[in-house]
Amino acid sequence: MATIRHSVHETHGFKTHVAQAGDGPPLLLLHGWPEFWATWEPLIERLADDYRLIAPDFRGFAESGNPNPEPSDQTGADVLADDIIALLDALGLDRVGIVGHDVASFVMQRLAIRFPQRLSGLFFFNCPTTSVGNRWRAPDQIREIWYQTFHQMPYAAALVGASRDACRAHIGHFLKHWCHRKDAFDSVLERWVDNFLRPGNLQGGFNWYISANAARMAVMAGTAPMPPKITVPTRVLWGRHDPVLRSAWADVLPEHFSNVEVSFAEGSGHFVHYEEPDLAATEIRRFFASLPATPASRSA
Amino acid sequence: MATIRHSVHETHGFKTHVAQAGDGPPLLLLHGWPEFWATWEPLIERLADDYRLIAPDFRGFAESGNPNPEPSDQTGADVLADDIIALLDALGLDRVGIVGHDVASFVMQRLAIRFPQRLSGLFFFNCPTTSVGNRWRAPDQIREIWYQTFHQMPYAAALVGASRDACRAHIGHFLKHWCHRKDAFDSVLERWVDNFLRPGNLQGGFNWYISANAARMAVMAGTAPMPPKITVPTRVLWGRHDPVLRSAWADVLPEHFSNVEVSFAEGSGHFVHYEEPDLAATEIRRFFASLPATPASRSA
Repeated sequence: MATIRHSVHETHGFKTHVAQAGDGPPLLLLHGWPEFWATWEPLIERLADDYRLIAPDFRGFAESGNPNPEPSDQTGADVLADDIIALLDALGLDRVGIVGHDVASFVMQRLAIRFPQRLSGLFFFNCPTTSVGNRWRAPDQIREIWYQTFHQMPYAAALVGASRDACRAHIGHFLKHWCHRKDAFDSVLERWVDNFLRPGNLQGGFNWYISANAARMAVMAGTAPMPPKITVPTRVLWGRHDPVLRSAWADVLPEHFSNVEVSFAEGSGHFVHYEEPDLAATEIRRFFASLPATPASRSA
Repeated sequence: MATIRHSVHETHGFKTHVAQAGDGPPLLLLHGWPEFWATWEPLIERLADDYRLIAPDFRGFAESGNPNPEPSDQTGADVLADDIIALLDALGLDRVGIVGHDVASFVMQRLAIRFPQRLSGLFFFNCPTTSVGNRWRAPDQIREIWYQTFHQMPYAAALVGASRDACRAHIGHFLKHWCHRKDAFDSVLERWVDNFLRPGNLQGGFNWYISANAARMAVMAGTAPMPPKITVPTRVLWGRHDPVLRSAWADVLPEHFSNVEVSFAEGSGHFVHYEEPDLAATEIRRFFASLPATPASRSA
């Protein structure tokens, strides 16, 4: 396993924790829920020889700070995008590639629209867009989206955090249900439980759902404005069997990305990077190698 | 307060607990979730002088038995309807009026279709029907229906039952959120928590959601068969502000009932009988007085 270097950086009004490994062109690894930096370990192991991998925890997750520890709607995609830009500034990085999914897929789209000059390329595992529209509330999707409301309940963190068993049941449910390779997270489940039981980390994650709700509702209702098209080179590797971010939704990606290549990870669900890390690493290498070289960072 | 007589009756393979009060024409009072017989206390107080009020606990609720204590899909509307018929037989009652809502609104419709000769009249507080269709998944309804999926999770009862605080948070949320008169259940909340913390009662209630899901999905998808029209005289008093069973859905009641009178409880949400018990009692009296006299029970 590559040596992982942990550091903490003052960013945007709070401290961002970053796990880094390797050396070379910088690749930011951006997690989803229920995840944190450690979800990238399988990719760190496979890519650290060739890239400088930078895996932050979003605000409210794992070891990063959280300026809004109570239930808050101040943790939406634009806020997290600003956090990432502040982190790049703190690290002295002009331009990076980004690999991410889930929560990060929303953040990456906002980054690409607002700060395209800071990005060499975007690599998504699964990628919901505005054009998914009312497919979010299709009859057979209803059973999959309940947690997006539950996580907004003021008592959700107390319920899930009532005991270690409760936390394991809830976090473990999603780590298994969203996987196609059902045992993918079995060996690290207790670490995940440790992480989400750290004070503030359940609410920290749930604040994403509170903050994202207005945009989610607008997408479902078909009233969300169509965002500008993203021109940053983009690669999407979509887990074929993701039960919540459906691979069928890849059909609308060209409405949002002018330069996108899409393929499917046939052995994966939601967590392609964890379920098929060999495939994921191969495709990440191939994509970023196909781009013009990422400029060196501003400082060493 | 009227004297309440508690009894237990062998019915349909398990023991049904019944709270009874008063004397006169028999009126069955059928509860919803998260409720049990005690939800009828405000009406028992107001109606026991003129009716024999019979408030059972559905299987898996409160003090009734439960032949399927594990997560089970064997507790749907037809099963609960059979339970009620078995109870009427055990009590020696040929024909009764029924007052009910929520879970019971589904059970009452099945009873009226399958056993109309056992019913003198139906009084619903709020009444969702098959014709509600895809309004169940309208954008602004999505935030209201999450619990219908959450309650189907195999770990839901463990989560909600992890502590008294957890149980109070979840049950208390719905008792307040679904009310228009927000303090309606404040004085009995701890009794409700006591009840749902009794072994098996959380899962017992959640089994309704597991069992009802296929029918719910068919309604949402528009594939549910249109049931035969109900001819039993029917009265619906719909809480205007019910956030989950929308009073706007009253528009399709005539598609399901050939003899129905509808009005709205302007000061109520989901629990009209608890939020506006004076109005509820007045309208129940008026409705059942307007019907041909209910025959006496078969035995004294």
